[in-house]
Amino acid sequence: MITRMSTLFLRTLREDPADAEVPSHKLLVRAGYVRRVAPGVYSWLPLGLRVLRKVEAIVREEMDAMGAQEIQFPALLPREPYEATNRWTEYGPNLFRLKDRKGNDYLLGPTHEELFALTVKGEYASYKDYPLSLYQIQNKYRDEARPRAGILRGREFLMKDSYSFDLTDEGLVESYAAHRATYVRIFDRLNLRYVIVKATSGAMGGSASEEFLAEVPIGEDTFVRSTGSDYAANVEAVVTPAPPARELDGLPEARAHHTPGTPTIDTLVEFLNGADLGRTFTAADTLKNVLFKVRLPGATEWDLLAVGVPGDREVDPKRLEAALSPAEFQVLEEADFAKNPFLVKGYIGPRALLENKVRYLVDPRVVTGTAWVTGADQADHHVVDLVAGRDFTPDGTIEAAEVREGDPAPDGTGTLVAARGIEIGHVFQLGRKYSDALGLSALGADSKPITITMGSYGIGVSRLVAVIAEQTFDSSGLVWPRQVSPADVHVVVAGKDATLLEAGEKLATDLHARGVDVLLDDRPASPGVKFKDAELIGVPTIVVIGRGLANGVVEVKDRATGDRTEIAVDSVVAHVVGLTS
Amino acid sequence: MITRMSTLFLRTLREDPADAEVPSHKLLVRAGYVRRVAPGVYSWLPLGLRVLRKVEAIVREEMDAMGAQEIQFPALLPREPYEATNRWTEYGPNLFRLKDRKGNDYLLGPTHEELFALTVKGEYASYKDYPLSLYQIQNKYRDEARPRAGILRGREFLMKDSYSFDLTDEGLVESYAAHRATYVRIFDRLNLRYVIVKATSGAMGGSASEEFLAEVPIGEDTFVRSTGSDYAANVEAVVTPAPPARELDGLPEARAHHTPGTPTIDTLVEFLNGADLGRTFTAADTLKNVLFKVRLPGATEWDLLAVGVPGDREVDPKRLEAALSPAEFQVLEEADFAKNPFLVKGYIGPRALLENKVRYLVDPRVVTGTAWVTGADQADHHVVDLVAGRDFTPDGTIEAAEVREGDPAPDGTGTLVAARGIEIGHVFQLGRKYSDALGLSALGADSKPITITMGSYGIGVSRLVAVIAEQTFDSSGLVWPRQVSPADVHVVVAGKDATLLEAGEKLATDLHARGVDVLLDDRPASPGVKFKDAELIGVPTIVVIGRGLANGVVEVKDRATGDRTEIAVDSVVAHVVGLTS
Repeated sequence: MITRMSTLFLRTLREDPADAEVPSHKLLVRAGYVRRVAPGVYSWLPLGLRVLRKVEAIVREEMDAMGAQEIQFPALLPREPYEATNRWTEYGPNLFRLKDRKGNDYLLGPTHEELFALTVKGEYASYKDYPLSLYQIQNKYRDEARPRAGILRGREFLMKDSYSFDLTDEGLVESYAAHRATYVRIFDRLNLRYVIVKATSGAMGGSASEEFLAEVPIGEDTFVRSTGSDYAANVEAVVTPAPPARELDGLPEARAHHTPGTPTIDTLVEFLNGADLGRTFTAADTLKNVLFKVRLPGATEWDLLAVGVPGDREVDPKRLEAALSPAEFQVLEEADFAKNPFLVKGYIGPRALLENKVRYLVDPRVVTGTAWVTGADQADHHVVDLVAGRDFTPDGTIEAAEVREGDPAPDGTGTLVAARGIEIGHVFQLGRKYSDALGLSALGADSKPITITMGSYGIGVSRLVAVIAEQTFDSSGLVWPRQVSPADVHVVVAGKDATLLEAGEKLATDLHARGVDVLLDDRPASPGVKFKDAELIGVPTIVVIGRGLANGVVEVKDRATGDRTEIAVDSVVAHVVGLTS
Repeated sequence: MITRMSTLFLRTLREDPADAEVPSHKLLVRAGYVRRVAPGVYSWLPLGLRVLRKVEAIVREEMDAMGAQEIQFPALLPREPYEATNRWTEYGPNLFRLKDRKGNDYLLGPTHEELFALTVKGEYASYKDYPLSLYQIQNKYRDEARPRAGILRGREFLMKDSYSFDLTDEGLVESYAAHRATYVRIFDRLNLRYVIVKATSGAMGGSASEEFLAEVPIGEDTFVRSTGSDYAANVEAVVTPAPPARELDGLPEARAHHTPGTPTIDTLVEFLNGADLGRTFTAADTLKNVLFKVRLPGATEWDLLAVGVPGDREVDPKRLEAALSPAEFQVLEEADFAKNPFLVKGYIGPRALLENKVRYLVDPRVVTGTAWVTGADQADHHVVDLVAGRDFTPDGTIEAAEVREGDPAPDGTGTLVAARGIEIGHVFQLGRKYSDALGLSALGADSKPITITMGSYGIGVSRLVAVIAEQTFDSSGLVWPRQVSPADVHVVVAGKDATLLEAGEKLATDLHARGVDVLLDDRPASPGVKFKDAELIGVPTIVVIGRGLANGVVEVKDRATGDRTEIAVDSVVAHVVGLTS
């Protein structure tokens, strides 16, 4: 294909759009790839649509190669299936809901678990029919509270969602692994820098859920990686390495101390080190007990929960939320303390918690034999050398303490560093939640029904266009990897001389004949404008036909490296074909 | 690609679905191409999606070839642009409307004139930028009152819509012609039988609007065609051939007659032929004056309108509506007659109408010099030999009389016959309506603004899948034209012998190596079941590997003609490649 810029529906902008904050958003708008229609709702102009379609094609090829079968659901969906799984309600304001002319409820599909499950139920009946993986590449709708960053977080976006259907847990693990491997191939083909992070701490099973995060500084997701291995995880999923338990024999006895005016860890540590206790204390030697109230979905009563963490760390609300999910939690209010006078604010200790049957979960570092300074359940008093497993036995452990750079990596390979990323893919072992809710089962060889277990797998296809831009742009503009570039080569006719334009047309025609897609800048604009636009648009190879033509040469520029080479006109076709194939 | 039916997500049905009335709907469901999700909302299963994508690809190729540029708009659209053109209201209950979490109004795009106009306005400024044609292939949403016939009339459907932007009327005519020619190429490539009908009677200009109607007995649109040429038109668009005017000299004088008890044409003709008037009368000799009240959009007052048609014809409400559009009309009620006592029901004549300044439009057959029997504005009285242009002069003509089979074709080539069709394409010279409403103009060479004139062009892409099915199916199932078939060849392994399956796999592999897409029936099902499914699915070439294999032959069957040929195993690849390339 030859695309002439003289007629291409493209007007580049010199200025960043006022509403754009992140580089990909600025550049995709400036280079004329996308245009905003409403908050989080964009249109794709010709060059943008080409990149989107190339990304989509790579995703499709790899999904087909793994044996997943493509189908396509509507975006406009009836309420009933989502009612059956409670997602009509659970989705809250993120769901676009509407009524048809008869007053029936519809929604715009945010993801299609229900429809896939029902469709498989409609077609398949026997265990012989399984396993099965289906996918679609389709526009999804989510009414984000804060759509942002252009197509990075839109309200209408193109997604590849797939679903696996298996008879057994082992089958699900295999389907999950196949999807995971396919995602690796897709993101590798797109030249992305990404990590695969465990999305939850594993309460639901070893690899029940992993996220593919593309590393970009403007990412919304924080994750940690090990300095010594390819370990990476969402902060919520980091498993704290527990130290080995220690012998109880010979440990000093617990002793209560009068510690006036020490309701905080800082004041406590300062006091202890001022007192004559024969050793130095740090915040990490103290055990801070933080009180919450917790309620399971559907429950009306709140239960008390105490979380014990080393005093040098805060409770991370996101980690706590992940650990408690699906239960919700709140911090304790004054009224709650008033109702529970055994909770002495600033001086809460394990004894009062356990005596009063408050559920008490501690950080994994609180292993048997560790000795702590903690509250003595009396104003202005703390206990020193309170030993876990001897003086108190918590109800269990919880991953709620903050994760910090420098913490040891859970795999023992190094220390953790923080990074930022954007979710580009998600693989998830759904299990039987949807099959149970919607009655998806197969008749087994023994004529007994087998509930199907499902996996759910997503890739944000339109988002990938922005993510690739984020990982490749430079100060002059976009820099597309060849496999998704809107053209293979950008031929710039640098000058108004008719022979230059003629040479440009001839080169475009010759390249086209060799299967190369050419973006030909045949506009009457100045060479400077054209060079700037070529940098901004970001096609990986730029051929400049300019003054050198008189001497039989053109310039071939590598957009990414900036390298320029003079090539004889006679051999430029072969040279470019060599680069692009 | 080799698609194995042993794992393909496909279950054919022996029974027609209960809700299906038309053949394409029944067969596309039975053959596992589509499934209903909600009224007018369908999902595409693997084979259906392949056909859809092939149709889409042909549409895209031809749109690209004509120089139209593909872009893509969201389906979720803000209210404001549609408010500016009044379509937010005008669309009525056909529009899916919704609110986002902030309470802002959105709609699901039924068609995108506003967005295209605004986008061009955003990018282009100078007359040098034009002309331009843009298109998209995208899901559209219309809340049809009666979604029916499966994907033939859905509420979510895939459409190619394009828009042309020109500086001049001549430019629009050219862009229109280019689109029309492209549509002809597209529908020809799809082997469709179709006619191009004028969609309106031409009040807005010669070829302001044409529809492409695929001829199918179950079509919703009635049209007429000439027995003597390729003239075809919507009934609304038929222009009545007017007879030549006649000399007034020597015509008999008009005379009023007492015609008791003749309020209808039948009673009048019977009375006249019973009276001794020296000649025979037919209903076609009478002039029936039918009264309506008419109101322009936004007006509060109704105006009277009298329509005079030959007494052998009724006023066709759809033709009247098209002729009066955008004005609305109602038939006159008793109260209206009471208010206008000069209207003597059953005996209304031109005299009272014209004396009382009632707008009076007549059928084009009422030319100067034609003599009519019509009402004398007095109960039980009619006038005979009332001559147009001598005794009365109407305010003009109107295309409101019914069109009948046997009427002369407007192009003078033969007579009209009725046919039924489905709209598959529409080309329309929009003019400046949207540019005016949305302020789309270009700065001319003289620095004066030029309002852009637009054309709008649509093809129902998903509907085409059903239309092709309607025009090609037979009693055994679907019969796809090769260019849209879900596979090139259907290889049926007819028997459980391992050598048959081996031969099938080998043939599939060899064909695949030659670029042929193979649907391989490798299921353990009986040959009878497989043959039935192959007929139902409708791949154009079926290769049966059965008993003949022992003698070195397989059977190649043409799905459309039913012809069977025995081919030596050695040469079957070459034979099939020959058929499919």
